[in-house]
Amino acid sequence: MAKKKDRLIYLPLGGAGEIGMNMYLYGYGPKGSEKFILVDVGVTFPDMESSPGVDLIMADPAYITARADRLEAIFITHAHEDHIGALGLLYPQLQAPIYCRAFTAAIGRNKMERLGADSSAIKEVGMWPETVEAGPFTVGFAPISHSIPEASALVIDTPAGRIFHSGDFKIDPDPQVGEAFDPELMKEIGKGGIKAFVCDSTNVFNHHPGRSEASLPSAITEMMAHASGMVVATTFASNVARLKTLAQAAVDAGREVVMVGRAMNVMTQTAMSTGVLTDFPPVISIEDAKGKPRDKLMVLATGSQGERRAASAQLAVGKYQGMELKAGDTFLFSSKTIPGNEIGVGRIHNQLAEKGVVVVAEDDRYHVSGHANRPDLDRLQTLLNPELVIPMHGEYRHLREHAELAEANGRKAIIAPNGVMVDLTNEAKVAEHIDTGRTYLDGTVLIGAMDGIVRQRLQFAMRGHVVVSVMIDEDNRMSDGVWAEGHGLPEPKHGSLDEKLEAAMNRDLEKAKRGALGDDETIEKIVVQACNRVCKKAIGKKPVVTVLINRMVA
Amino acid sequence: MAKKKDRLIYLPLGGAGEIGMNMYLYGYGPKGSEKFILVDVGVTFPDMESSPGVDLIMADPAYITARADRLEAIFITHAHEDHIGALGLLYPQLQAPIYCRAFTAAIGRNKMERLGADSSAIKEVGMWPETVEAGPFTVGFAPISHSIPEASALVIDTPAGRIFHSGDFKIDPDPQVGEAFDPELMKEIGKGGIKAFVCDSTNVFNHHPGRSEASLPSAITEMMAHASGMVVATTFASNVARLKTLAQAAVDAGREVVMVGRAMNVMTQTAMSTGVLTDFPPVISIEDAKGKPRDKLMVLATGSQGERRAASAQLAVGKYQGMELKAGDTFLFSSKTIPGNEIGVGRIHNQLAEKGVVVVAEDDRYHVSGHANRPDLDRLQTLLNPELVIPMHGEYRHLREHAELAEANGRKAIIAPNGVMVDLTNEAKVAEHIDTGRTYLDGTVLIGAMDGIVRQRLQFAMRGHVVVSVMIDEDNRMSDGVWAEGHGLPEPKHGSLDEKLEAAMNRDLEKAKRGALGDDETIEKIVVQACNRVCKKAIGKKPVVTVLINRMVA
Repeated sequence: MAKKKDRLIYLPLGGAGEIGMNMYLYGYGPKGSEKFILVDVGVTFPDMESSPGVDLIMADPAYITARADRLEAIFITHAHEDHIGALGLLYPQLQAPIYCRAFTAAIGRNKMERLGADSSAIKEVGMWPETVEAGPFTVGFAPISHSIPEASALVIDTPAGRIFHSGDFKIDPDPQVGEAFDPELMKEIGKGGIKAFVCDSTNVFNHHPGRSEASLPSAITEMMAHASGMVVATTFASNVARLKTLAQAAVDAGREVVMVGRAMNVMTQTAMSTGVLTDFPPVISIEDAKGKPRDKLMVLATGSQGERRAASAQLAVGKYQGMELKAGDTFLFSSKTIPGNEIGVGRIHNQLAEKGVVVVAEDDRYHVSGHANRPDLDRLQTLLNPELVIPMHGEYRHLREHAELAEANGRKAIIAPNGVMVDLTNEAKVAEHIDTGRTYLDGTVLIGAMDGIVRQRLQFAMRGHVVVSVMIDEDNRMSDGVWAEGHGLPEPKHGSLDEKLEAAMNRDLEKAKRGALGDDETIEKIVVQACNRVCKKAIGKKPVVTVLINRMVA
Repeated sequence: MAKKKDRLIYLPLGGAGEIGMNMYLYGYGPKGSEKFILVDVGVTFPDMESSPGVDLIMADPAYITARADRLEAIFITHAHEDHIGALGLLYPQLQAPIYCRAFTAAIGRNKMERLGADSSAIKEVGMWPETVEAGPFTVGFAPISHSIPEASALVIDTPAGRIFHSGDFKIDPDPQVGEAFDPELMKEIGKGGIKAFVCDSTNVFNHHPGRSEASLPSAITEMMAHASGMVVATTFASNVARLKTLAQAAVDAGREVVMVGRAMNVMTQTAMSTGVLTDFPPVISIEDAKGKPRDKLMVLATGSQGERRAASAQLAVGKYQGMELKAGDTFLFSSKTIPGNEIGVGRIHNQLAEKGVVVVAEDDRYHVSGHANRPDLDRLQTLLNPELVIPMHGEYRHLREHAELAEANGRKAIIAPNGVMVDLTNEAKVAEHIDTGRTYLDGTVLIGAMDGIVRQRLQFAMRGHVVVSVMIDEDNRMSDGVWAEGHGLPEPKHGSLDEKLEAAMNRDLEKAKRGALGDDETIEKIVVQACNRVCKKAIGKKPVVTVLINRMVA
């Protein structure tokens, strides 16, 4: 039973107000000493625009690491990178048991082990009605269809009521691999009342009912049967159902199947070893494929988002393990391009066109989304009949649209982007605003997105870098001249930039008052001003300046 | 009449194999001493991925500047930046008379004057059948509908036959501002035979017939009449017809019109002063708008592509000249998001959603494209009935698709991306491959994209920069220790990166053989190796290293 002073809170740390790096916190107990569970520990991917040189991006875990002694457990809804990708990186700060289903657990263990973390922290849990006790929480994994095996919604029971955390989902009565969406199960779960429905918002702007994976096989088979040369198909490696759909379509179209790219092989192996996937068509090696007629082959390749190192990108420009595309071959993107990846995917498309390969892309006949569209969101709301809808997994516009959808149906909704703590105990209300942010994996170090390190690199990229060395003798006078080097800067129309810089800096430093060069800040100021003046005039830019001052010791 | 040894050539320098920075060369005469005309001198826009800190990108004009004495004239089809944007920047190297229609000329003169170039080089030409003689070429501006006033196709007559260079176009029988697409005129132009039809390929993947600007006013009026608060609408500033459509719709919906953002004011002023635009609805100032009820206002704002400094972006986050958006207001993107701009446009959409503003985007009822769709390309081919189709203004995939479309209709087609010179004299064939590339405006200097300057900045952005100063005394020994500073680099988990670097470098330099430090290259090698070793271990990155060696003179 709920005690009067206890409260039930929801706090998104990542994934609400953006699509990616999901991390949601639930707490229960007296204010300031709540016990917590964390749902998902995902990543998002860097880009040159905001995070050049960064390896991975995850939610700043500061709020929960400061309270790690009260973290009872971590639950992972499914094995997509934006839900599990930071598990190995952040586990050392979190140190709580990790619960997930078998397929997710296998992927998670692999991630932990590669980083030297203790993979025994991961515990496998069967599907609902099996549950896990974690402090005041009782949590079960309700199977729900998505685009990866064993995706689960979490049924989170607390003394203050039940929360349904959808994870990523779609309504698919026949997902080809794994558990179908089960409306009866949802109704059953909702029967005793749902306090809050925390729900995926990705496709809220899509007004059409979602389509089932089962709508694809016949269209893809027909397409592969009519294609003239070799067919290459790409999709997300973790979409095991799609891999099976594509492979089976190839077989039905009289083609043998080759699989290239590490991630696809890992995913299918994992799906088979965990019993999720039982009847995948036979796959032949690239070596064996070489003797076969091209129109009897179908190659599954990683890299549907244009990733430069993946098999698709390599096939687009040349050979991949001796395999090469030719004019008349067909390349199928059985995928949707994620916003931000258009240029990379377009690059592959152009390169394939140069080879004379027929490209089939962004064609609804050969791809279905893994997320619930607007009518499907409606339907799950109706099945669960929650007191409150809290949209997650969306940019702000998605959260707002989703909240308005719920309200249009006469439900209560709260928009809670990252950092907005919602008190769900009685009448739901915003309780606090918590500082949240992003943590970068930069090389092997975790840094804060706002630490200034990456900002400095962006400055170099925009403005270039002038490095100046100044030698000062024992009497605080210039010894020799300064040495200035511009890096990443154009040469002026006339003369040398470095020479212009050195001439101006020497002149200004020599003009300085007697003794003034005893002070490093004065030297730096003189050098930077000279640099800005010269560069502005000579090349129209204002570079970053670093001044190294060497003082000779008497 | 054509002489036997003369040849007619087409050489795209920019815009074929990409969308942007259009620059096409035509030549006629004996091989090696052809006379040339240049069509369009456009720009494309930089991004952080490939060109951080760059101000503008244009085609490398090297081929034609090396032959500038044989350049007879420059023709500008229309005033979009990707066709005219580099005119002022490259004119000093080209120095040939520039011909265009009045509206384009006004925009062009402005560009030239801002850069101090001689704007009297620009000559106004009336529409076809008026023509200009330029060496062996006779060129006329055939009016054709697009999304900017006075867009023109070029009718290029040569002793070897007529070329039709479409420029950017759509088939619009009622474009609201300026000349309609005139099928009779096209038929007339094609009557004597067209040797080559060089044609816009942008929308070749769109299978629907294009829609007219005239399809918008009633839908937009209705939308503005039903919107509750203030309406803000954005589109390309140069789309004068759309500005008029939006403004007239506002008036018809009982709203007064405000126009914010410099570019829109310049474009409408220019359209009025050149007589292109005669009946634009009255516009009130922001000051006058302040007293009016919000639901009686419509604001036209620049920045439909998410540009950070434009009025739309400023309105999305705060105030623009005292004007502020509120919950319940409506924001209309009367535009399409250009690939690559999705993130920037999404950012504005999210910011507006946070304010509670209703956002209407990517809705076909409120926007039509300025480019011919596939059936329209077909139609113009039929009207002109050319011997050969050469697709331009498209990425490679567009060029290929467009060539295949022509071939499917029984026509000849040649795919000629940038640098592929086509000899059109008799049987069209590829004559040569010319080195082409990109020129960057970086600050105030023009540099080659492959000069390594921007590549170095990208390296800094990805890897950070370690700057090292080494003092060597008269006896080729270390004087004091080295000074190392990491910039844009994270600190290791334990200790200071700079200290680790200095310790390792000092140790390695001191270990060097007697006299070895007399050689700068040896010092640099030792320092770089120490840096790589320390950084790899401490932070998992390999930074760029700059070593400054100061030698004391005896």
